[in-house]
Amino acid sequence: MYEAESEKSPLSLSFQNKSQIFPMSEKIQEFRQYREKMNERLLAADNKIIKRIFNLDTNTYVDGALSAREKELLGLVASMVLRCDDCIKYHLETCFELKVTKDQIMEVFAVANLVGGTIVIPHTRRALEYWEELESLI
Amino acid sequence: MYEAESEKSPLSLSFQNKSQIFPMSEKIQEFRQYREKMNERLLAADNKIIKRIFNLDTNTYVDGALSAREKELLGLVASMVLRCDDCIKYHLETCFELKVTKDQIMEVFAVANLVGGTIVIPHTRRALEYWEELESLI
Amino acid sequence: MYEAESEKSPLSLSFQNKSQIFPMSEKIQEFRQYREKMNERLLAADNKIIKRIFNLDTNTYVDGALSAREKELLGLVASMVLRCDDCIKYHLETCFELKVTKDQIMEVFAVANLVGGTIVIPHTRRALEYWEELESLI
Amino acid sequence: MYEAESEKSPLSLSFQNKSQIFPMSEKIQEFRQYREKMNERLLAADNKIIKRIFNLDTNTYVDGALSAREKELLGLVASMVLRCDDCIKYHLETCFELKVTKDQIMEVFAVANLVGGTIVIPHTRRALEYWEELESLI
Amino acid sequence: MYEAESEKSPLSLSFQNKSQIFPMSEKIQEFRQYREKMNERLLAADNKIIKRIFNLDTNTYVDGALSAREKELLGLVASMVLRCDDCIKYHLETCFELKVTKDQIMEVFAVANLVGGTIVIPHTRRALEYWEELESLI
Amino acid sequence: MYEAESEKSPLSLSFQNKSQIFPMSEKIQEFRQYREKMNERLLAADNKIIKRIFNLDTNTYVDGALSAREKELLGLVASMVLRCDDCIKYHLETCFELKVTKDQIMEVFAVANLVGGTIVIPHTRRALEYWEELESLI
Repeated sequence: MYEAESEKSPLSLSFQNKSQIFPMSEKIQEFRQYREKMNERLLAADNKIIKRIFNLDTNTYVDGALSAREKELLGLVASMVLRCDDCIKYHLETCFELKVTKDQIMEVFAVANLVGGTIVIPHTRRALEYWEELESLI
Repeated sequence: MYEAESEKSPLSLSFQNKSQIFPMSEKIQEFRQYREKMNERLLAADNKIIKRIFNLDTNTYVDGALSAREKELLGLVASMVLRCDDCIKYHLETCFELKVTKDQIMEVFAVANLVGGTIVIPHTRRALEYWEELESLI
Repeated sequence: MYEAESEKSPLSLSFQNKSQIFPMSEKIQEFRQYREKMNERLLAADNKIIKRIFNLDTNTYVDGALSAREKELLGLVASMVLRCDDCIKYHLETCFELKVTKDQIMEVFAVANLVGGTIVIPHTRRALEYWEELESLI
Repeated sequence: MYEAESEKSPLSLSFQNKSQIFPMSEKIQEFRQYREKMNERLLAADNKIIKRIFNLDTNTYVDGALSAREKELLGLVASMVLRCDDCIKYHLETCFELKVTKDQIMEVFAVANLVGGTIVIPHTRRALEYWEELESLI
Repeated sequence: MYEAESEKSPLSLSFQNKSQIFPMSEKIQEFRQYREKMNERLLAADNKIIKRIFNLDTNTYVDGALSAREKELLGLVASMVLRCDDCIKYHLETCFELKVTKDQIMEVFAVANLVGGTIVIPHTRRALEYWEELESLI
Repeated sequence: MYEAESEKSPLSLSFQNKSQIFPMSEKIQEFRQYREKMNERLLAADNKIIKRIFNLDTNTYVDGALSAREKELLGLVASMVLRCDDCIKYHLETCFELKVTKDQIMEVFAVANLVGGTIVIPHTRRALEYWEELESLI
C-alpha cells in the first residue's frame, strides 16, 4: 500500500545505511548530507505524487529479470547522457557498493560519450573524480 | 518601438524593484546581484537580438488570456523539465511575489518530476531549498 | 493499493471514455487508436514499474492545490519545451475538454516558444493544427 | 516598429520567394507547403509573442559582424544537436541558396555528430537526403 | 589504422549480415533499407570525422569488461531517455539477436521511463511494437 | 594509426600550449587546471573508445572545407544550445585565440538564445563573463 510504503522515507533511509557501510571523504559526505536533508524536506512537504516517484525510484533498481547491478549501470548511463551530475554520483555510489569494477565503469562512460557526444566529457571528468574518491575510501 | 523599449533595460529594472519588496538572504542576494550585473553587461554589449529576447521575456509573463500568475507557473515547470536552476529560481521568486502557495509549488514540482523524470529530482531539491529561503524572509 | 489500482488499466479506460464524449476526425482517431492499442500491450507486458508510472500519470492531473485545468496547461507547456508531439496532442485533448480557449492555448504556445526557443516552432505548427482539428469537431 | 513589422508575415513571405528561386521536388514542396500553411495560421491566431518570435527569427540570420552564411551554418548545427528535423531542413535550404558546398555541409554534420553524439546520426541521414534532393534540383 | 578500417563500411556490412539472420517484416525491412542506403551515402560523402564516428560506433558495442549484451542494453536505455526512435530500433534489433528476453527489455523500458519521465512513454509504445514485430519473425 | 595518435594525449598537450600563449586569471587557471588534471586521469584509465573520442575532438576543429575558426563558432553555438558551461568556456578560449571579435561572439550568443530559448540566458551570462575575463588578459 502506497501511503504506508512512503512513510518509510525510503531514500533517506537508504542513505543512512550507506554511510554505515564505508567511511566518507568530505566531498562525498557533503553530497550525501545535502541530498538527505533536502529529500527529507521534500517528503515532509507531503505531496503524494512526489512521494510516489521517490518510492518508485527505490523499487526500480532491484533484482528482477535484470540484476540490480545491471539496472544501476542503466541508471548510470541514462544519467550521463542526460547530464545530471547528482544522478551520476548517486548511481556511481551504488555501482561501487555492487562491486562494479573501474574498467566496467569506464565502458559505461564510453557508451555515454559515444551516444551523447563530447558534451558528456565534462560530466565524465567529474564522474571519474567521484569514482576515484569512492575507491580511495577502501 | 523596440529600440526605445529596450533602452529601459527591463530585466535589470525589475530586479531593482524586487529587492525593495522584501529583504534578502545572502543566498538570494548573491543570485540576484550576479544576474543583475551580468544582464547589464549583456545589454551593454548592445546586440539587438539579445536585447529583443530580453524585452520579449519581460512582455510574456503578463496578464492576458492567462493570468501572469498562471504564466509564471508555466515558466516554472518549463524551467524544471529543461533543468535550468537559475531559471527555476527566477520563476520561484515571481511566483512567491504573486502569492502562489507552497502546496501549489509542490504540485508544479510533481508535474515536472512526472513528465521530466527522476533527473528532475536534484533540481527539485534545490528549488525547494530556494522556495523555503524565500518563505523565511517574510 | 497499487496492484489493484493498476488492474484498472487507467489510461486505456480514460481513452474509451474520451471517444464517447465527442466524435473523432480521422487524424484524431488514428492517434487515439494507436495509443490505446499500444498502452494495452504495454500494460499487458505486466511490468510493475511501467504500470505504476501509468497510474501516477492518471493521478497527477486532478484537482488539488492547483486545478486539473491548470495542471493540464503545465503538462502541455512541459511537453512542448521537451518537444514530444504525442504528449502535446494528449494534453491538447484534455485542455479542450476542460474548456481552455484558443487564446489561452496560444499563450501556452508563446511561453513554450520563448523558453524553449525556435526549435519549438515546428511542434507549435503541428499543435495548432491538432487544436483546430479538435475545434472543428464541435 | 514591431506591430508593423510583423504585419508583413515575414516567414511566409520568405517561403513564397524561395519557391520562385528554384523548382521543387515533391518532398521539398510538401515540407514547404505545410510549413507555409501552418505559419500563416499561427500568425493569424494573432498572439503578439509568437509574432515577435517569428519576426526575430527573420532578423537574426542577416549579415552583421558574422555573415548571413555563417549564421545559417550556426543555425544548422544548433538544429542538428537539438535534433529538430524541420529546423534542419529549413537551414539546409538557406545554406543551399547561399552557395554552401556539400563538403562544408558535411563538416557541419561532423561537428554536430561529434558534439551531439551518435543520436544525431539518424537526423544526419535525413539531412543528407534532403541536401541531395536540393542539389538534384539544379 | 583508421583509413583502412573505415574502408570496410562497417555499419552497412553489419546490416547485410543481419538480414541474412532472420526474415524481415515490411516495417523492419523499410527501416533497415533506408538506414543502409543513407549510411552508404553518408560514408560515400567521405568526411573523415563522420567515418570515424561510424567506426567508433561499431567498435563500442563489443565484449570487453562489460559484455556486448550489457552494452547494447546501455545503448538502448540511452537512446530511450534521449528519445531517438531510430536508435531505439537499432539497439532493439541487436538485443533481440543477443537473446535478451522480453521481460528484460521491459525492465530497460522501466528504467528509461522512470529516469526520463512520461515523455518517454510514446517512444516506449513504438519500441514495444517494434520488439513484438521482431519476436513475430521467429 | 590510432593507438600511436592517442599516446600523444592530444587534449592535455593543447592545454599546456595554451597556457604559454597568454597569462591566466585565477578563474581561467582554475578551469584549465581541473580540466587538464582530469583529462589526464581519463586517458590514464586507458579506455580505447574514450581515447579515440578525445582524439576525434582534436581532429575535428581544424581547417578543412570550413576554417578552424568557423568550426569553433559551430562548436560554441552547439555547446550553448546544449547548455554545457565547460564546453562553452573551452570554445570561447579557442575563439579568442583565433581572433574572433566580441561583436561576433555576441552574434553567436544571439543565435543560441533564439534557437535554444531563454533557458540559454543564464549560460550566456556566464559565457560573457568568461569572454570578458579572456579579454582582460591582453
